[in-house]
Amino acid sequence: MSARTGSVKHVTSTANPLIKAVRALHQRKARAESGLFLAEGHKLVLDALAAGWTPTMIVAMEPATDAVSDLGARVRALGADVVFANAAVMEKVARRENPQTVIGVFEQHLADPKTMPAGTIVALEEPRDPGNVGTIIRTADAIGAAGVILIGSSADPFGVEAVRATMGSIFHMPLARMDADAFARFAAARPGPMIGTHLAGSVDIRTIDAGPSHILLMGTEQSGLTAALAQRCDSLVRIPMAGKADSFNLAIATAIGLYELRRPHL
Amino acid sequence: MSARTGSVKHVTSTANPLIKAVRALHQRKARAESGLFLAEGHKLVLDALAAGWTPTMIVAMEPATDAVSDLGARVRALGADVVFANAAVMEKVARRENPQTVIGVFEQHLADPKTMPAGTIVALEEPRDPGNVGTIIRTADAIGAAGVILIGSSADPFGVEAVRATMGSIFHMPLARMDADAFARFAAARPGPMIGTHLAGSVDIRTIDAGPSHILLMGTEQSGLTAALAQRCDSLVRIPMAGKADSFNLAIATAIGLYELRRPHL
Repeated sequence: MSARTGSVKHVTSTANPLIKAVRALHQRKARAESGLFLAEGHKLVLDALAAGWTPTMIVAMEPATDAVSDLGARVRALGADVVFANAAVMEKVARRENPQTVIGVFEQHLADPKTMPAGTIVALEEPRDPGNVGTIIRTADAIGAAGVILIGSSADPFGVEAVRATMGSIFHMPLARMDADAFARFAAARPGPMIGTHLAGSVDIRTIDAGPSHILLMGTEQSGLTAALAQRCDSLVRIPMAGKADSFNLAIATAIGLYELRRPHL
Repeated sequence: MSARTGSVKHVTSTANPLIKAVRALHQRKARAESGLFLAEGHKLVLDALAAGWTPTMIVAMEPATDAVSDLGARVRALGADVVFANAAVMEKVARRENPQTVIGVFEQHLADPKTMPAGTIVALEEPRDPGNVGTIIRTADAIGAAGVILIGSSADPFGVEAVRATMGSIFHMPLARMDADAFARFAAARPGPMIGTHLAGSVDIRTIDAGPSHILLMGTEQSGLTAALAQRCDSLVRIPMAGKADSFNLAIATAIGLYELRRPHL
């Protein structure tokens, strides 16, 4: 519990500097500089609180419903500032029509991968699509994975589209970012095999016994795993296919891989 | 082979009525009225040709590369018109910056579900998200399903976002649309069980023997299967979960369900 009670402001102008600063968090640069991110929606802010995340601020629609007023009082007691804003200002902050009634501002938290418990880690090499990154974080959560690692230059998991796709799992899943070298050292030191998926993989993923603790490594949307990381894998597997499609979407392939590896343990 | 060779036009004005008509195909109403849809990209048009689909028209970037000129000659011989357009006009047609060099206009084709061969059919009750619909069509193709059925009012599978997400599978997968009553009659008449996924499903999907031919029925993103269709299922199954997420994304749940049911047959 914070000693300080959060402040309350009422904003009616879209030119307000605070509103401009919150709106800027749609941009990666502003997120990187501030270390903050946006989570849209009353339910998502409640999910965050339940998971132990306190916003630094919430922006809430005015006139406020009782539920929104209650949420405001609750987060103020935890030290968060509350900015009440009219519909026009909310649209500006949300950058869309029909905005949510609450938008939370949170500090980004990344995990030290060494603290991720035994179990399945999913590692993604330079994923480009924020929707894929968010969906994979949600899927990893739903399937009980131990953590998600983003390798190299990837889509920002704290971008609005990615956070939206996580459906709250951004607040549940241990998430780390590493460069390829640091990841290779981490993978070598962690007990259990590293399983890479590869279109040219020689092993059918259904036949592998990866044990209860392992890393599932997925390549980029465009070109799969780089050779540098592929050669670090204990096995290169393929997901069986039929039909005429060249490949699965990255989030789909990751989900099938996670499901297959977790299948004996669910 | 068409008797008629397609025409060639060169357009430099974004106000050209033909360009306006093609651009209008981004809107559902224009697609419904014309029965046409857009497929963006040189590779996608090649995929379509390989699958036996001939465009009614292609719009191609001018000045044209040799490959684009060759494609233009090829589709003209099949009876398609070719409209060469400068970069500004291409951006207008594509409604985005850095447009593809080729945009194909195709007639929508739906399958009669009675012609779908034995195997796995995936049926979606009123899916709302075009990205999900497109991704599911791609996944169904990759896993060798026999067809996809959209039930009731759903996202348009011929919208630009859905077609893009199919990555060419829109040209491969038999696709049907039906209302709920017609679907229920079809399902009852088709050999093999209908398996519905349901958060309250009593059967673990890993334990079910659905045989080689069956229907996998998925509910909406928001609220799952309606009672009316759930009661038509032979089994209501759940996908095992762990962790804290409430649910999977619809395309992810469908992929895991398809994978699990096709797993013995892949």
